[in-house]
Formats: sequence, C-alpha cells, structure tokens
Amino acid sequence: ATHKLLLLPGDGIGPEIMAEVKKVIAWLNARGGDTFETEEDLVGGAAYDAHGKAISEEAMQKALAADAVIFGAVGGPKWDGVDYEVRPEAGLLRLRKDLELFANLRPAICYPALADASSLKHDVIEGLDILILRELTGGVYFGEPKEITDLGNGQKRGVDTQVYDTYEIERIAKMAFELARTRRNKVTSMEKRNVMKTGVLWHEVVDDVHKRGYEDVELEHMLADAGGMQLVRWPKQFDVIVTDNLFGDMLSDVAAMLTGSLGMLPSASLGAPDGKTGKRKALYEPVHGSAPDIAGTGAANPIAMIASFGMALRYSFEMVEEADLVDRAIAATLEKGLRTRDLAGQGDAVVSTAEMGDAIVAELENL
Amino acid sequence: ATHKLLLLPGDGIGPEIMAEVKKVIAWLNARGGDTFETEEDLVGGAAYDAHGKAISEEAMQKALAADAVIFGAVGGPKWDGVDYEVRPEAGLLRLRKDLELFANLRPAICYPALADASSLKHDVIEGLDILILRELTGGVYFGEPKEITDLGNGQKRGVDTQVYDTYEIERIAKMAFELARTRRNKVTSMEKRNVMKTGVLWHEVVDDVHKRGYEDVELEHMLADAGGMQLVRWPKQFDVIVTDNLFGDMLSDVAAMLTGSLGMLPSASLGAPDGKTGKRKALYEPVHGSAPDIAGTGAANPIAMIASFGMALRYSFEMVEEADLVDRAIAATLEKGLRTRDLAGQGDAVVSTAEMGDAIVAELENL
Ligand SMILES: CC(C)[C@H](C(=O)O)[C@@H](O)C(=O)O
Ligand SMILES: CC(C)[C@H](C(=O)O)[C@@H](O)C(=O)O
Repeated sequence: ATHKLLLLPGDGIGPEIMAEVKKVIAWLNARGGDTFETEEDLVGGAAYDAHGKAISEEAMQKALAADAVIFGAVGGPKWDGVDYEVRPEAGLLRLRKDLELFANLRPAICYPALADASSLKHDVIEGLDILILRELTGGVYFGEPKEITDLGNGQKRGVDTQVYDTYEIERIAKMAFELARTRRNKVTSMEKRNVMKTGVLWHEVVDDVHKRGYEDVELEHMLADAGGMQLVRWPKQFDVIVTDNLFGDMLSDVAAMLTGSLGMLPSASLGAPDGKTGKRKALYEPVHGSAPDIAGTGAANPIAMIASFGMALRYSFEMVEEADLVDRAIAATLEKGLRTRDLAGQGDAVVSTAEMGDAIVAELENL
Repeated sequence: ATHKLLLLPGDGIGPEIMAEVKKVIAWLNARGGDTFETEEDLVGGAAYDAHGKAISEEAMQKALAADAVIFGAVGGPKWDGVDYEVRPEAGLLRLRKDLELFANLRPAICYPALADASSLKHDVIEGLDILILRELTGGVYFGEPKEITDLGNGQKRGVDTQVYDTYEIERIAKMAFELARTRRNKVTSMEKRNVMKTGVLWHEVVDDVHKRGYEDVELEHMLADAGGMQLVRWPKQFDVIVTDNLFGDMLSDVAAMLTGSLGMLPSASLGAPDGKTGKRKALYEPVHGSAPDIAGTGAANPIAMIASFGMALRYSFEMVEEADLVDRAIAATLEKGLRTRDLAGQGDAVVSTAEMGDAIVAELENL
C-alpha cells in the first residue's frame, strides 16, 4: 500500500529535524513493502510570513486528505507581536480541532543509555515507561467566551472558559482503559474536582466508563496538583495517566523532563476511527518545541521527531515491525554513544542533527 | 502588644500538628515581649460534621476579627460524597475569598540536612531557595459560570471560568517585584499566553507594572508548561515565580516536592494593607494536605505547620527576631538527626509528631 503523508516542518528547528525524518522515509520507500508519498506545506510563523495566517486553507485541505500529518514545531520570538488569532500556535490548534484529534498520547520513557542525564536520581527513573493520555480538543483551549474586554478606567478583563461534555470525557476514558490493557493495566485519572466543576464531571464520567466494561483495569483518581507531586516523587507508580487538555499540557511536560530525554519524546494525536474505513485521522509531533535559540546551528536532536514518525508507523499504518525497527535503531545509536548537544555529558563527543539522523538510518540498514 | 490568633486545625492531621504550634505559642507567651491570645474553631469536614457547612458564620466572623488565622488542613475520603458547595475545601476557599487573601507566598527551600531526601540529584536542589507567589482569589477558582448542566440524552456539560481583571494582576505583580527586591532581584512570570486570553492579559499587565517603577528588578516571562519543566530541570535558575491561581497550585506542589521536604513547607496568604492601620489580613497554612491515611498515628511532621506560624511572626507581627529563632530551631532539630517518618531514611530513628514539636521548643530554649 501507499500512504499519503503531509509534512509540516514549521518553525525554528522544525525543518532541520524534519529533514532527518525524510531520510527514514526514503529508506522505507527503498526497502520495498508499504511506501509513502509525501507532500509538504507551511505552518506556524512560516505560514504567517508567507500568507498572514498560521495555516492556509490549502494546507488544511491537504491535512484532511492525508493519511497522517507529520508535524515539526511552531513559534518563536519573531512572532511575539502578531495578533492572537494568527499567532503560530493557532495553526497547530486548528489542526487539532478540525481533524478532531481528541487523544494525545505522550509516552514518557527513560532510555537506558540516558538514565543519568535526568535531574532525578537514577533509581527514580531507570526503566520508567508511562503514558500520558491528554484530552486535546476540549477544555480551556477551545471553550467560549475566550476574550479580553475593556472595562474602562484602565481596567481590562480576560476570560477563558473550560468546557467538557460527557461524550468528550467518555471517549478519552475509553481510550485510556484500552491502552492500559496493552500495558500494565492501570489508569490514573487526574483532575481538580475539589475546585472545578469540570473536574467533578470528569471524575464521575471516568468512574462510569470504568464500571461499564473496564472493571478488569485498575482505576485510581488523583487530584492534579498531587499528581504533579507524585510524578516527581515516584513516577514509576503510574502506567497510563488520563487528564484534561491543560493539566495534560503541564503534566506531560513535567513527565518529559523527568526522563532526561526531552529531545527524545514523541507524541501521537489521534481522532476517532472513521465509520466506514476504520481509519483514524492522526498527527505526529515531538513533545519539545521549536527551540528558536538553536535553530540553524545543527544542534537539534532529531530523535523525538523520528520517534514520532515511528509512532505513525505503529498507530496509523499497522507497520509494527518497521516501528519496532525505528525504536531499536534509535536505542542502538544511543548505546553506541552518539549524543547531540542536549544529551552530551561532560567529555562526550557531540554529533550534529544530520549525523544523528544518518547514524539512525545506518542502524536501520544493520538491524 | 497582644495579637489575636484564630486557630483552625481542620481535618486529618490538622489537629495534631496544630497542637505542636500551641507549644511554640505558649513558649513565646511565657518568654515576655509580644503575646498571643488564641481562639479555636472548626473548618472543613469537621465543621461540616458539626453544622453542615465547611465553615460557620461565627468562625468567619472570628477570622475577620483576628490579626491572623493559623490554618491546619482540610478534607478526606470521609467527605467524598458531600455536596460540592459544602465540601471541606469550600471552607478554605471562602476564607481566602472573604478575607481577600490575594497573595499566597510559598517558599520552596531545601533544608541542608534533607538534601538527600529528594528524588532529585543532590546538586540540583542543594541550597535551593525560591519563592512561588501564587494569585489566590481569582482565576478559575472563583470565576462564574461554574456549573454542571444537564443537556438531556445522557449528556452533561461542565463549565469553569477563568477570569482576571487588570487590578488583580497588578497587585500580585507589584508584590512579586517588592519581594524580589528583598531576595535575588529576579521575577519569572508564568502563564500560557499562547493559548489563554487571561495569559495574554497577565503578560501585558506584568510588563506594564515592571515598566512603571520596578525596572531595577530583572523580569523574565515563561510559558507555564515550560516553567514546570524548568522547575524540574534546574530550579535554582529561579528567584520569585509569580503566577495565577491554578498554575500556582500545580507549580508550587511540584516545587515543594523537589525539595524533598513536603512536610516542611509553610505558606502565607496575605491581603492588601488596610487603609487606616496598614495591617494585612493573613492566613498561614502548611503546603501539605490533611493526610487522612496517617491521622491519629503520631506520624505527621509538624514542621510545615510550625514554620507557617513562623511566617506569621515575620509577615503579620514584625517579630523578625522570633521568626528567625523558630527557623533556626527547626534547622537545629534536623541537624541533630531528628526525623519524623516522612523524612526518615533507612536506619534513621523515627520520632513522633509530639516529640518533634517538643524538640523544637527545647531548641528555642537553647538558642
Ligand atoms: C504550542 C502549544 C499551543 C502547545 C499546547 O499548549 O498544547 C504545546 O505546549 C504542546 O504541549 O503541544
Ligand atoms: C485544598 C485545595 C482547595 C487547595 C487549592 O487547590 O488551592 C490546595 O491544593 C492548596 O494548594 O492550597
């Protein structure tokens, strides 16, 4: 089969790390088996510079038509002054919303070769393998009203609205339980039901979904602030964490940092299976951002981006063998001691973005 | 002078740790100099059990009349099923709101004797001394609408509203800059202006306050998710962090856990100075919660509660010498190796809540 990919490199280090994914795609295309057709377009600040919007209608059409979107990163100080509606992030948020990518899978794993790169103690994170499942199309990101109004007298009022409906919580809870079944069979749901009504509803609906067909999975509830603490104290207590859009944003960043591997962590954003084809819309992106400070210097770590493409192979194309190959090639490259600047300890030799990408492709050849 | 304190022990370990504060108060009263008159009342689940509300009107009147409120902790599984409006936390939230305690100071310091108790590496947290300044009377905690409505068809909708007005951001920003001047002269403001309109306003107002009179203080802006990461990566980069109510809740819990001293961290919640007397309304409480699992076992660590009273001496009563004494007595007790269960490493002898309190009072005698 031939799969259609839309590549959206975006801003900052986005294009550099996307270049390394292209090498992996070329390798797969040359190998035989399923192949990939790629298109490329602009998103974020790059799109704003080209046509005044964070994503063009054509690019949106391509995204809707693609089998998967491979996304780099957006944003940077260059666009700090642009209007809120056309800021770089608006491109990403529109993609998530219009493709209805309600489920964001953020694995936080500790690569053995990097267990000492974390600010946490070795035994706290050695072997860590948790999955943060973040609701991605609801909550305070999209609720209305979302506005600043002028009250006169030099006073303004900012308002954001967090909204969740039962069905939105139901579908993400179901996915959490199903993912847990393929892992260590435990789900921790996090909210602030002691302060937020959406937290009360979240808690109630997750409990309800659990009772209707998922009682074989262990379910635990935790307040989100306590959850943040527990992530730092002993992250291995968790398997799947399911939480709302904003808490998921915060908690997955903390979790990513725990592993000492921020430049290493991929994510998948998935929609519901299509009624006819069973296919899900999907977007794959690294957890890290556009890192404008190192853009163009060859210092960026392409691993999170390549691993995100690996998640595409697994979740969009059922190319499990190839996905495993990519993961093993990354691990093997690290075992050999190759380190981009973010990973290098004192005395380690540093390789560039392109050298890391080449080394991973060379491992793919060998495996 | 004589100062009027309202003691609200609350639930779980609240009464046990408050008992240790009373020993310190008795010691100060016996010592000569300023003295304290105390009243005591119920809050949280204890108040609910007594009269069906999380705080009575009489207790609220006492709080309004007191020079400072010393608060233990509220909540526990016993009250999981009670109505949202009368849940234990509602008592605390009403105190914060009705006393207009807009500024919550949460120092995260690493006690040298405990630098190895953290899940973080020694050099990451050794000597850590940062201050999280959390806005406490606005944001998603109090904004309306805050409700769950029935949409029919088995669907409900939960809504919470985050609201910030210019003046609310102004006063907390000013306090951040003034506190920074007494410390290392740096403020980091955290929000999500790439997603939230309240974040856009927050950023704008903090910048504005900075320009009007505080340009001698270094100001840095950080997205709150990146801030959570940076707290875990290298917390010593911060001095004062100023942020909204919900981000402050999350970030201060993460920061507390970093220090390895969750049972050690105090907080102060302050109002605006009174126009006539210049006095601020104030409430002092430990950062940790009511720990119902260990209530009644003598395992609770009273240090955060005693240190919170120490903050009262400093911020409400200008008893700086006595506040320093309390801090030094705590440090000395730890140096001598006394450990409550939460602090004990392998092989450490464990003392009870009361033994720890007695030891601190004994140190006060010696200093
Ligand atoms: C870029 C930004 C809008 C985004 C978010 O807040 O969701 C990012 O932080 C992320 O976590 O993917
Ligand atoms: C008990 C709860 C309402 C409270 C909060 O969310 O503010 C607590 O977590 C805190 O941080 O003081």
